[in-house]
Amino acid sequence: MAETNTSIKSSRQLRYVYSFADKVKSFPGLARRATWKVGKEDPRRVVHALKVGMALTLVSLLYLMEPLFKGIGKNAMWAVMTVVVVMEFTVGATLSKGLNRGLGTLLAGSLAFLIEYVADAPGRIFRAVFIGVAVFMLGAMTTYVRFIPYIKKNYDYGVLIFLLTFNLITVSSYRIDNVWNIAKDRMSTIAIGCGLCLVMSILVFPNWSGEDLQNNTITKLEGLANSIQVCVMEYFYDSAKQATEDDSSEDPIYEGYKAVLDSKANDETLALQASWEPRCSRYCHRIPWHQYARVGAALRQFSYTVVALHGCLQSEIQTPKSIRAVYKDSCIRLGEEVSKVLRELANSIRNKRQFSPQTLSNNLNEALQDLDNALKSQPQLVLGSRNGRTPNTPVQKLEEDTASARTPLSSVKNDYFSPRGCKSKEHSREQAKKVLRPQLSKSAIISLEFSEALPFAAFTSLLLEMVAKLDRVMDEVEELGRMAHFREFKDDDDDEIVVTCEKPKMIIAQNGMPSYGAE
Amino acid sequence: MAETNTSIKSSRQLRYVYSFADKVKSFPGLARRATWKVGKEDPRRVVHALKVGMALTLVSLLYLMEPLFKGIGKNAMWAVMTVVVVMEFTVGATLSKGLNRGLGTLLAGSLAFLIEYVADAPGRIFRAVFIGVAVFMLGAMTTYVRFIPYIKKNYDYGVLIFLLTFNLITVSSYRIDNVWNIAKDRMSTIAIGCGLCLVMSILVFPNWSGEDLQNNTITKLEGLANSIQVCVMEYFYDSAKQATEDDSSEDPIYEGYKAVLDSKANDETLALQASWEPRCSRYCHRIPWHQYARVGAALRQFSYTVVALHGCLQSEIQTPKSIRAVYKDSCIRLGEEVSKVLRELANSIRNKRQFSPQTLSNNLNEALQDLDNALKSQPQLVLGSRNGRTPNTPVQKLEEDTASARTPLSSVKNDYFSPRGCKSKEHSREQAKKVLRPQLSKSAIISLEFSEALPFAAFTSLLLEMVAKLDRVMDEVEELGRMAHFREFKDDDDDEIVVTCEKPKMIIAQNGMPSYGAE
Repeated sequence: MAETNTSIKSSRQLRYVYSFADKVKSFPGLARRATWKVGKEDPRRVVHALKVGMALTLVSLLYLMEPLFKGIGKNAMWAVMTVVVVMEFTVGATLSKGLNRGLGTLLAGSLAFLIEYVADAPGRIFRAVFIGVAVFMLGAMTTYVRFIPYIKKNYDYGVLIFLLTFNLITVSSYRIDNVWNIAKDRMSTIAIGCGLCLVMSILVFPNWSGEDLQNNTITKLEGLANSIQVCVMEYFYDSAKQATEDDSSEDPIYEGYKAVLDSKANDETLALQASWEPRCSRYCHRIPWHQYARVGAALRQFSYTVVALHGCLQSEIQTPKSIRAVYKDSCIRLGEEVSKVLRELANSIRNKRQFSPQTLSNNLNEALQDLDNALKSQPQLVLGSRNGRTPNTPVQKLEEDTASARTPLSSVKNDYFSPRGCKSKEHSREQAKKVLRPQLSKSAIISLEFSEALPFAAFTSLLLEMVAKLDRVMDEVEELGRMAHFREFKDDDDDEIVVTCEKPKMIIAQNGMPSYGAE
Repeated sequence: MAETNTSIKSSRQLRYVYSFADKVKSFPGLARRATWKVGKEDPRRVVHALKVGMALTLVSLLYLMEPLFKGIGKNAMWAVMTVVVVMEFTVGATLSKGLNRGLGTLLAGSLAFLIEYVADAPGRIFRAVFIGVAVFMLGAMTTYVRFIPYIKKNYDYGVLIFLLTFNLITVSSYRIDNVWNIAKDRMSTIAIGCGLCLVMSILVFPNWSGEDLQNNTITKLEGLANSIQVCVMEYFYDSAKQATEDDSSEDPIYEGYKAVLDSKANDETLALQASWEPRCSRYCHRIPWHQYARVGAALRQFSYTVVALHGCLQSEIQTPKSIRAVYKDSCIRLGEEVSKVLRELANSIRNKRQFSPQTLSNNLNEALQDLDNALKSQPQLVLGSRNGRTPNTPVQKLEEDTASARTPLSSVKNDYFSPRGCKSKEHSREQAKKVLRPQLSKSAIISLEFSEALPFAAFTSLLLEMVAKLDRVMDEVEELGRMAHFREFKDDDDDEIVVTCEKPKMIIAQNGMPSYGAE
């Protein structure tokens, strides 16, 4: 018994060793791939790394070259440290950190006056107690101040550096006679470090946070436009869905909106950094970076509706295709119009040119009217087949066919309760777990009894909701155009605005519903 | 003319001065309020501030007290700096920063061996060039490495400190003979600083990231439960909506879900910090903090549906109240069940006790069945009044009344296109801008012509979608219970699970539909 235990134990240990060895073996390849990917994703990173290396070498010369060393002394180290800490990827971030560091040091350094006065007081005990109390008070106060949202957002690093420098000077004053010298040295070396960082980041291949923010906004607008287009297309042409389902990691719909959903932190950081950058628009007005963050917020609100629309595709109770076919053209048209508006907004931001809300809303209105007409002309179809009404359309026939053909499906496709709203790696995990809960599949079958009109009505209603939310996005972009003094919209700009509305590649094989092409 | 200009200019300057004076005058009050609020929101912040003050005073003793100073020397300053930089609010954050700083320093310090070897080489020029090249190479490499997501997430600060210490030692080696001493000093002082921080943060009123994460998860679950409950109630009892609309900043529905929407960054940071914390669950298993982040992700997916549901309330095309009344009880019941499930999940996490998925899904299923029955028993009502069918229900009469009463409304309430999905401060700005675009209001009137069935169908469909997404949340919480070894669920736990399902205060005045109380 004990022997078996030991052998089990040793075999387990062996397995650990093997798996560890495997990990070690695969590590170089993994590391190489990760390293390569980082540079390929954004080649500016390589340039930035070289810039940092260059800045560090330059600042080291302060210590290495005799004449420079004589002027500054061994506190040149502080300049080296400053470069390591302050040099950031974008100009805005470097400026914000550099100015924070400079201001914090300056403020703390100016307190050195006060401290030198006290340091002259007689009595070592008194001085030690004074220093202790001052360190405690300032430490507690600055730490508390850092919790205030406004300070945290703008000056967190500055307050930290203030505390650091204050402590350095105060505590040193106990043993060093001329504190003022330390303060001066620290201020000058930090100024040199910050200056070098600024020169390097502004003059040598600068990366602007503002540019990143603008490009992000454009990418998000276009991603959403693609999502909506593909989403509406997939709703009416199933084959496309099945085709993409194989490589679930690259669902184009999810790819389109996922960047928008959790963009809050990133947007706000970029806007904050950009607001430090010394750039201006035409006629030297300040660029309203915070308005970009607001556009981002409106887009996030908008994207929640896109997620819900995507959910319609994945729900297992579906309105029969034949019914959907009747409203297909108008729905696709509305989806296209929404996408077009988003693309036009993206172009407006890209070309720094205002857009014409009138034209866009007119088109939207026409599409809405179109859908309304379709719904009014065939109202009974929305109601599903359960009412027994027989309108004289050829569609009714088709519908009955599919209705009878659909019944066996309900027992097969019972994964209504497996929402795949986010196609993540957990997908396989969820698959495995589905066996554990037969209970909910039961309700899946129940839910198939629900009125077939519901899903299609929800789809249409979400499209309308989307148009409503689009309005806020348009408002924010319009406001942006006004604040940033974009070029005014002219009617003869029209040839510029040719919105290249690339249709996503769809495999329309067995459906044979080419009416989309005829539009 | 010139005089008028000057007087205008000076009056403008005066106005600036006045507004500036006003700002200065109001500043103390503002600052006091902000300071007070920060402490009131979370009193642990005050404690933390005092802790930092204490730690700084203690570490200053290294420099102030003669015997300690003799041992360490003036590099004691590094310990002071370490405390300023490493001491964070929670144990996890402090540990992560402290260990990163320690590891980085250790790694860079051990390179001192290599450097001391080279520093012995003859030729100052050769040494200067070697140092320059080493600084450049290491600077560029570490900066590049910091872009790799895995490093950035876990060891960003460590790599930064490695670079800092490496530069400090390498550059110093040019003028100082015994670099090893610097390396040793730096390592020991940083170790002292980190040690003090850890002792202070673990032993004196510790704040655990894990606890915060757990409480956040519970709060989010309960917030969503409230949102859904209020949302469903408001959909059927308008008066409540009007009552809350006055103070738009405190919409209980928005309050409930807003914390969930942008929780990604916060959740992941907390989970990362918590994973550094030396705590364990029953039987000393590791607590699976990353599973909490996964629960958060599922909740975020879920909350997008809640946002869409909230959108249904705010859309201006509404199904007549009389129609909604027919399905009121079943919809409210389903909403209540979903809320109950969320509250039960919250309790499960709070009491570290597994829940019974069977019971919860059974209740959900019953509620679904109920809604299904309601929809099947009165299918024609979903279709709106446009079909001219006259079901023999007293509701039809009511409906016609409201239909005729609604017509004039359509010309008044034309703000369908002003989505108030996020009730933010921009509300008034939007109001002001509405005058600018008469175009979209036109489509608002068009859209009122849409089938009245749509909005209600969408509402119901979203409720179903919500149940579907709830399943993923349940899966994740179940998995959490398994991984964290929660107590097993027993049937006699039932008296513990009395879910106190407080009904939100609603002013049901003119509606007179008290059937909710009868349930």
